[in-house]
Amino acid sequence: MSEHTDVTPCDAADVTHWDETADVIVVGFGAAGSAAAFSAAATGAQVLVTERAGGPGGAAALAEGIVYLGGGTPVQKACGFEDSVDDMYRYLMAACGPDPDETKIARYCAESLGHFDWLVARGIPFDPTFCAETSMAPSGTEGLVYSGGEDAYPFNAIARPAPRGHLAKTERATGWLLMHHLATAATEAGAAVLTDTRVDRLVLADGRVVGVQAQRFGGTISLRARHGVVLTAGGFIFNDDMLRRHCPPLVRGTFKVGTEGDDGRGIRMAQAMGAAVRNMYAGAVSLPITPPRTLIHGILVNGHGQRFINEDTYMGRVGQAALYEQDGEVYLIVDEASYEVNWMGLAASWVCETAEQLESEMRLPAGSLQATLDVYNRHAARGEDPLFHKGPAWVRPLVPPIGAVDLRIGPAPYAPFTLGGLETTVDGAVLDLDGDPIPGLFAAGRTTAGVCSFGYASGLSIGDSTMFGRFAGVSAAASSL
Amino acid sequence: MSEHTDVTPCDAADVTHWDETADVIVVGFGAAGSAAAFSAAATGAQVLVTERAGGPGGAAALAEGIVYLGGGTPVQKACGFEDSVDDMYRYLMAACGPDPDETKIARYCAESLGHFDWLVARGIPFDPTFCAETSMAPSGTEGLVYSGGEDAYPFNAIARPAPRGHLAKTERATGWLLMHHLATAATEAGAAVLTDTRVDRLVLADGRVVGVQAQRFGGTISLRARHGVVLTAGGFIFNDDMLRRHCPPLVRGTFKVGTEGDDGRGIRMAQAMGAAVRNMYAGAVSLPITPPRTLIHGILVNGHGQRFINEDTYMGRVGQAALYEQDGEVYLIVDEASYEVNWMGLAASWVCETAEQLESEMRLPAGSLQATLDVYNRHAARGEDPLFHKGPAWVRPLVPPIGAVDLRIGPAPYAPFTLGGLETTVDGAVLDLDGDPIPGLFAAGRTTAGVCSFGYASGLSIGDSTMFGRFAGVSAAASSL
Repeated sequence: MSEHTDVTPCDAADVTHWDETADVIVVGFGAAGSAAAFSAAATGAQVLVTERAGGPGGAAALAEGIVYLGGGTPVQKACGFEDSVDDMYRYLMAACGPDPDETKIARYCAESLGHFDWLVARGIPFDPTFCAETSMAPSGTEGLVYSGGEDAYPFNAIARPAPRGHLAKTERATGWLLMHHLATAATEAGAAVLTDTRVDRLVLADGRVVGVQAQRFGGTISLRARHGVVLTAGGFIFNDDMLRRHCPPLVRGTFKVGTEGDDGRGIRMAQAMGAAVRNMYAGAVSLPITPPRTLIHGILVNGHGQRFINEDTYMGRVGQAALYEQDGEVYLIVDEASYEVNWMGLAASWVCETAEQLESEMRLPAGSLQATLDVYNRHAARGEDPLFHKGPAWVRPLVPPIGAVDLRIGPAPYAPFTLGGLETTVDGAVLDLDGDPIPGLFAAGRTTAGVCSFGYASGLSIGDSTMFGRFAGVSAAASSL
Repeated sequence: MSEHTDVTPCDAADVTHWDETADVIVVGFGAAGSAAAFSAAATGAQVLVTERAGGPGGAAALAEGIVYLGGGTPVQKACGFEDSVDDMYRYLMAACGPDPDETKIARYCAESLGHFDWLVARGIPFDPTFCAETSMAPSGTEGLVYSGGEDAYPFNAIARPAPRGHLAKTERATGWLLMHHLATAATEAGAAVLTDTRVDRLVLADGRVVGVQAQRFGGTISLRARHGVVLTAGGFIFNDDMLRRHCPPLVRGTFKVGTEGDDGRGIRMAQAMGAAVRNMYAGAVSLPITPPRTLIHGILVNGHGQRFINEDTYMGRVGQAALYEQDGEVYLIVDEASYEVNWMGLAASWVCETAEQLESEMRLPAGSLQATLDVYNRHAARGEDPLFHKGPAWVRPLVPPIGAVDLRIGPAPYAPFTLGGLETTVDGAVLDLDGDPIPGLFAAGRTTAGVCSFGYASGLSIGDSTMFGRFAGVSAAASSL
């Protein structure tokens, strides 16, 4: 369309001058890129990392920094939780569906303990303490949280629940600390870095990827890769055109999670030479309701005054359901005993003496919220929730006066990022439309479709970015002309 | 992966012998292909059509054969309905969303009257009579039906309602008759046809499509196109792998609409050379409940005993909501006055004296269906439905004894086909990842993303296949090396 957006691959025969040459070129210096660069450099390969921004970090440095790990990590054990690779596998196969990539999930689980050790060896500290109050980053330095609804319906019946959200120990943002250590590890291992460099297209010779072309300070440079190129350039949450083509609900997400570099260019430049994509409709959607967890005693309703999910599940599942299925129109109904202003200041917009008054003030259809409350309270009196299976600990009748927290788009922050991308093997090779690896091309992180086909748990993005980033880096270093 | 599935394009330099040469090669002899072949031949071009099956027809010949047309067609006028291009446009922009291709919808509406004439000129007869009983093909020969919920919420408030589902006049299947005339028109205009020929990949020279390679009776043949190739090879409803990658809900659809040729090969062979796709998650899902329309007096509920849609809308919207959002678990609740066995024999599986007994027999949570009925009946007593806005004509309290028709996957037929595909201009040019036309490559029909981004109305698939097939055929004939 314009030179600015052109991702059509370039023929090596048309490259008159190579500005730099390395064994492995890594495109993007975020979580996946730093892991790939470190691992490739650790094999002895000469590595060059390019980064659009002025420094490393990517989306991970802005994120909460949870890493999803399990199977009995030292942190899990110190906190008194039993876990197994099998339970982790069963949970992920259920939670990452429908139809998640079984091969990737199996590898992710099998390698999880080793990946914990790898992160520790990169200097990342984990405080072996558990925080029960949140499924996000705690306000303290605790190193473990439930981050995917493992202890709630339906997953608590599918696999033995264990918290698997691991956080680096810091009073600051854990994502920042994580990326500080990973980027430092990559450069200390010998990776060279070109910042302020936006890779635009791949360079091909005889169907093999042999380099990239990039914009740097207004000029085009050509970078040659002797062994392979690793695309770790993020997702496409900052490209509204791509969102409209592939996952329209995410266009309405107000607080996009990522950097402006997440414009899908990494995905598109590989697609332009025939790479396959999958799960392009999928997106993680955070809708932060708790802490405090006492709010879970309330009920979530949609614009018809109906419940639609168990309130004790992972808030990312609530966010997905709210944005994808309820059109971003949801409310939390609370009574005095369950109500507190939440951690980010979300307070009740309506408080009334009766459900009838409340539904009227909220402009919900007459009788709709009353009927929902009647059915809920009838079962809650026995500690049961046969409609959505909220756990007994959170089920008790709601007693007037009652109020509602407005969780519609606008009043509440919907924070999405994309989960779809290039189809890769567990070793990071990018596949073409026939399912064959494209010679010389590797990828990891949100440029790829990872362990999640649609469902998500906090920590799976940094988790699969760093783990499969490692494998992609090693594969690229070992790839030969 | 295997030679059988290899869609990687072939370099013209590797073609040692061209088995056939034509100006335009049309891949697939269904609705889009026959329109493209006729229109290209009518410009004087030498046209060769390939077809995997033993004869023409494709999915359209097996379908109901509704064509979505409006703006005041002779049939609409004869039946006493006023319509305008503007009303048709407003309806489609709302019904085909979210974020439909505005350019395509505008062109589709502007050309609709001319396309009616074009179909008539191909010999297709339309009976100028209206059938109010169904939104599918009538049992008689009526030529006009409401086929997209134009006369129900929310569309009746967005545009003046008019029926736009046009049907060829026949006692047999209208899809068959339509395809008989269109295929005959193409061959009479001079198009040559190679049946039993499965095109596997495109042939390129300097980035331009110059032909195709195909399997025919066990051998590979190469077909040269002097001007252009038109891909009209259907969608991908018969490729479970692609469904899992792009639209997992459709995997569970039991009665796939199409032919086994709808395996996505046309989409994949273009993607393999860098073509862009969109709306790959979208699927039309028919769930045939009516006729008789008296069933609309009932209410549809999900597995939580909750309503989820206005029952008087287009049944394709019910089918989409049921399969995509309700996990294929829905029921129709009826009383004696609203109940009849439906046209395909779907009968009540449960009949009870009270709602309490019914929800118990259906194993719905205690009180859930009762609460839904109480709220519904409360408003229905005044002819209102503030929750889902079913029209007043269909709203009256449901009186015990009541029963339920089991509309879950299995007992009820869910009939899906895919709506996503290649990104094309209104002239049928296939676009690459940069939004630029790929020289020599054109497409139409379900190989492309048409007027629907997600929402659907009956007749839009044959409608956009035949109209944009015509334009693609003309564009291919006019394309020069």
